[in-house]
Amino acid sequence: MKVALAQINPTIGALAANARLIVDFADRAAAMGAELVVFPELTITGYPPRDLLLDDSFVSSSIEAVETVASQIRGITAIVGCVERNPASGERPLFNAAAVISGGRIVSMHRKCLLPTYDVFDEDRYFQPGPQPRVAECGAARGGVSICEDVWNSERFRHHRRYAADPIEQLAEAGADVLVNLSASPYVYGKKRLRLDILADHARRRRLPLIYVNQVGGNDELIFDGNSAAFRADGSLAAMAAQCAEDLLIVDTADLAEGKSGHDGFDSVREDISTIYDALVLGTRDYLAKCGFSGAIIALSGGIDSTVVACIAAAAVEPEKVLGVAMPSRYSSEDSVIDARKLAENLGIRYEQIAIGRIHEAVERELSGIFEGYEPDVTEENIQARIRGMIGMALSNKLGMLLLATGNKSEAAVGYCTLYGDMCGGLAVIGDVPKTKVYELARFVNRDGEIVPDNCITKPPSAELRPGQLDQDSLPPYGQLDEILRRYVEECRSAEQIVSDGFDEATVRDVLAKVDRSEYKRRQAATMLKVTGRAFGTGRRMPIARGYD
Amino acid sequence: MKVALAQINPTIGALAANARLIVDFADRAAAMGAELVVFPELTITGYPPRDLLLDDSFVSSSIEAVETVASQIRGITAIVGCVERNPASGERPLFNAAAVISGGRIVSMHRKCLLPTYDVFDEDRYFQPGPQPRVAECGAARGGVSICEDVWNSERFRHHRRYAADPIEQLAEAGADVLVNLSASPYVYGKKRLRLDILADHARRRRLPLIYVNQVGGNDELIFDGNSAAFRADGSLAAMAAQCAEDLLIVDTADLAEGKSGHDGFDSVREDISTIYDALVLGTRDYLAKCGFSGAIIALSGGIDSTVVACIAAAAVEPEKVLGVAMPSRYSSEDSVIDARKLAENLGIRYEQIAIGRIHEAVERELSGIFEGYEPDVTEENIQARIRGMIGMALSNKLGMLLLATGNKSEAAVGYCTLYGDMCGGLAVIGDVPKTKVYELARFVNRDGEIVPDNCITKPPSAELRPGQLDQDSLPPYGQLDEILRRYVEECRSAEQIVSDGFDEATVRDVLAKVDRSEYKRRQAATMLKVTGRAFGTGRRMPIARGYD
Repeated sequence: MKVALAQINPTIGALAANARLIVDFADRAAAMGAELVVFPELTITGYPPRDLLLDDSFVSSSIEAVETVASQIRGITAIVGCVERNPASGERPLFNAAAVISGGRIVSMHRKCLLPTYDVFDEDRYFQPGPQPRVAECGAARGGVSICEDVWNSERFRHHRRYAADPIEQLAEAGADVLVNLSASPYVYGKKRLRLDILADHARRRRLPLIYVNQVGGNDELIFDGNSAAFRADGSLAAMAAQCAEDLLIVDTADLAEGKSGHDGFDSVREDISTIYDALVLGTRDYLAKCGFSGAIIALSGGIDSTVVACIAAAAVEPEKVLGVAMPSRYSSEDSVIDARKLAENLGIRYEQIAIGRIHEAVERELSGIFEGYEPDVTEENIQARIRGMIGMALSNKLGMLLLATGNKSEAAVGYCTLYGDMCGGLAVIGDVPKTKVYELARFVNRDGEIVPDNCITKPPSAELRPGQLDQDSLPPYGQLDEILRRYVEECRSAEQIVSDGFDEATVRDVLAKVDRSEYKRRQAATMLKVTGRAFGTGRRMPIARGYD
Repeated sequence: MKVALAQINPTIGALAANARLIVDFADRAAAMGAELVVFPELTITGYPPRDLLLDDSFVSSSIEAVETVASQIRGITAIVGCVERNPASGERPLFNAAAVISGGRIVSMHRKCLLPTYDVFDEDRYFQPGPQPRVAECGAARGGVSICEDVWNSERFRHHRRYAADPIEQLAEAGADVLVNLSASPYVYGKKRLRLDILADHARRRRLPLIYVNQVGGNDELIFDGNSAAFRADGSLAAMAAQCAEDLLIVDTADLAEGKSGHDGFDSVREDISTIYDALVLGTRDYLAKCGFSGAIIALSGGIDSTVVACIAAAAVEPEKVLGVAMPSRYSSEDSVIDARKLAENLGIRYEQIAIGRIHEAVERELSGIFEGYEPDVTEENIQARIRGMIGMALSNKLGMLLLATGNKSEAAVGYCTLYGDMCGGLAVIGDVPKTKVYELARFVNRDGEIVPDNCITKPPSAELRPGQLDQDSLPPYGQLDEILRRYVEECRSAEQIVSDGFDEATVRDVLAKVDRSEYKRRQAATMLKVTGRAFGTGRRMPIARGYD
C-alpha cells in the first residue's frame, strides 16, 4: 500500500485556507497512487491554536471545516488532525484528535493520550487526555494512530517520565500493523537526531513500520522543521521529507517490511549551523507572510547581529523587499557605516542613512535643566538607542514594512539591550541565538564568498553608545558568557553547579543576577524565534517582582 | 479552640524573608492564645512562583526553609503552604502541599487535589494532583485541609466542571470537624461575593465550620485581596479579615458551632468601584516595593487615564515620591497643561513640564527626505507619542523611578495606543480597567472633593496627536465599545452572539477585527494589573500571526 506523508504549512486559525490545502494535498496524493494520506497534528487549525480553542464558535467552525474536508476528499483515506468536543462533565472540554476520513465521511476518531504541559506547551489548558488508543482501519492496513507527544514517553530517552502510559506499546498490543504519528514538533537545535532515534526505537521494538508526519512552517516563536519520516520495521530510516519546506512524500508499506536494510540510514542526518539558518529563514518568512507584511526593515549598525538578521531577512523575502537603515551617532565609528553600506550592496537590499545627531542634541537640550547635577550614565546611552527605535518604527509605519529586532540571546539574557530602543520590532529573529552562534551564522553565510563584510566578524563587538565602548567592558568574553548562560537558562543549573563546572564564582553570580534582574525587559521583548531547548518567551515563565534570598 | 487566620503578603522567591514573616505571625498568634494558625497557599514561595519551580535548587531551598520554619515555631500548630517533591516516575515532579507543623517539626503533609490550568493558572505545568485528601490532627481538632481550587469544584456554581472529584465532600466524609482552606485567590471585580457563597455552601452542606485563609498582596499582574474568612457550620459568615492589607484574625471554633446566627452575615459584603481602587493601589505599591523602586513617574496628558494613574500612584507611595511630567506638543490644548498642573497640585506630587516641540521638529527634519511624497498618517502621531515615551524613560533611568504606563483596557483591546510610545512603562496600572470604569474611578477619587480636575472628567477624550482629534472619530462611544469588548474579550462571545444582543453588526465586526489585529501590541505591553475575569496578559494567550477565514 502506498502511503503519502503530507507535510503541510497551515496558518493558525485560517480554517478555510487550511481545508483547501488539505484537500489539495489529498488530491495530489491520490493522483500519485497513494491509498492513505497522513497530515500533521491539528491540521485544520494549525499548531498551536492557543486560546482560539477557548472560543466556542471557533471550535464549531473547525469541526465544520473538517466535515467539509471529509466530503471533498475522494479516492483516498486521509488522517487529519482536528479538535473534538468532550461531552463529559468533570473533564476538560476538548480532545486533541485525529479523524480518519474515508468515502466522504469521518469513519473514526483517535485521541491524543499524552498532553505536553511544559516548556512552550499548554495542552492541559484545553484538552482531556484520551483513554486507551485505538487502531484505525485504513484501507488494507490497521493503523496504530497516535499524536505527537504519544511517541515521546519512551523510558529509554527520558530521565524523568511525566506519564505512566506508553500509547505506542498499547497500539502494538492492539494489533496495529503500521504505526502512524501526526505531529507538530517544533525545531530545536540538536533535536532532529533524538527525534529519529526515538521513532526508530518504537519501530524496532514493536517490529512495525512507522509513518511520522510533522508540521512545517513558522507560527510566531515556534518553527516547525518538517523532516517527516518513514521507518522500516527494523528501525531503519526508509525515507525523509524536506527540511523547512512543504513536501508530499510517498512510501510503500511493502518496502517498509523488516530486514530490508542492514543499517539505520541515519548517516545523512547531520545537524549543523545550516539548520539554524534554515529554521530562522523559515520563521522570518512565515511571520512576515502570515502577518501580511510585504517587507522588512533592519537598523544596520555595522555590528554582527544586525548584519546576520539582514542576511536572514534577504533570504526570507526577496532582497529588494528589505530595507537596511544605518543611523550613525556621534560615537559611531566610520567603519560601522562603511560595513553597513557594504553589506547592503552585497545583499542587494535597499539602503538608507539617517544621522541621529541633531535629534540627539535636541533631546539633550530639553533634558539639560532637569538633568543638571547628574553625572552621565546609562540614560544617555539609552536615549540614542531609543531615537533609533523611533526612526525605525516611523519607517515601518510609513512604508508598511515590519521592523525586525536584531538582539541576540546573550544580550537578552543579561539585559545588555535597551527597552524601546534596539529592542523595538515585531520579531526578534536571532533573539534565541547565543552571540557565539551568531558568529557561526555569519561564517555560514560567507561559506561561498564574502556577504558579511569581514570586518563585522573580526572587530571587537561594541554598542557604540559612548566613546571607545566595548561589550567586554561590561560582560565576560562571549565564549564564557554563553557557556554560563546555557547552563543557567537552558539547563536550569544552579550557581553552585555552574561554579563546580569550573567557572569563576564572582563571574557566575554576576551573570545570574543580571539574568534574574532583566526579566522586565524580556517581558516586553518582541517574539523571539525559538531554536534552543529553552528560549525566552512562552517556554520560560518567570516572575518580575521577586526576592532573591 | 482559638484559630488564627494569618493573611500575609509574601514576596515571590524571597524564601528567608517569607520564613521570617511566617514565624513572626505564628508567634503573634500564639501570644494571642491561638492553638492553630493557618497561612495561605504556597506561603513559603509566595504565589505564583511560576518557573522558579523548575529550578531544582530553588525547590530544595524552599523545602529547607519550611523545615527551618518548623523548627522555629513554638507553642502553636501551624499549617503552611509549601512545595513537596513527588518521587514517583511517570508523574509531575512536585505537589502543591500544606505542611502541618507541631512540636518543632512537620507532622503531616496534605496535597492539593484540583489543579487549576486555565486563565492565569498553569498548575499542571508543575504539579501532580494529590490523591484522596486526608484529615490532619491539629491539636484538638480534626482539620479537613484543602488548598484553593479544591473548594472551587462545586456543581452548584460551575456550569462546566473541570474535575470529577469534590475534595471537600471527601474530607467531610473522612471525619473532619473543621474545614480549612489555604488559598491564593486573585482579585477579580465581582468575585468576592461568589467566593463567599461557595465557601458558605460548603460549610452549610457539610455542617462544619470553615476557615479560609487567602494570600494578600500584588505579585506582577495578580493582586490578592485577602478577605480571609471564617464561616459557622450553618454557612453564616462569622468573621472576615482585612481587604487588600495584611491581617491576623482570631476566631474561636466554639463560636462557629451551628445555629449561632439567624442570617448569612453577607449584608456588609459590598463590592463597588472602591474595591477596584483598593486593589490597584495595592498592586502598584507592591510592584514598586518588590521591584525595589522608591518612586513612580507618570506622563500627565491632562486626560482621564494618566490622571487616575497619578491618583493611584500617589496613594500607593507618598505623593512626594511621585513625579508627574507634562509633555505638551503643538497639538496639546492649553487646558491639558492646566489640568495636569492642577492635578499635581491637588495630589501634592512633584511636577515637571518638558515641551516636545523642538525634538518633534528635529525628527521631522531628518525624515523629510525619505518621507517625501507620502501623505501624513498615523506615523506622525506615533512619533509624538514615542518622543514622550523616550523622555519618560530618560527620567526613569536618570532618577531611578519607575515609569507607569497609563493606557486603559479599552485602548489596549482595540490597539488605540502607540507601541514604545504611551505604552512605555514597567506597569500598566489601569491596563485591565475599561474606559467607562476609569471615569468611575475618577469620580470615586473625588468623593470628598475635587482631586481630579472636573475638566478631565467632562471634556471629550482625545489623544491630541493631530488638530481637533477626538477618540470618538476612530472608535464607537466608550459606553458601547466597552459593552462589546466585555462580551468578546471576557466572555468569549462570537460576533453573531454580540450582534444578537442588539449591537450594530458593522460596529461589532470592526471592533472585533481591531482586537484581533492588535495582538502584536499587547504582546509587548507592560504588565497589566488584573481586575477583570479575563485580562490581557498570561490569562489570554493568542497567536499573532494567524488567518481569519
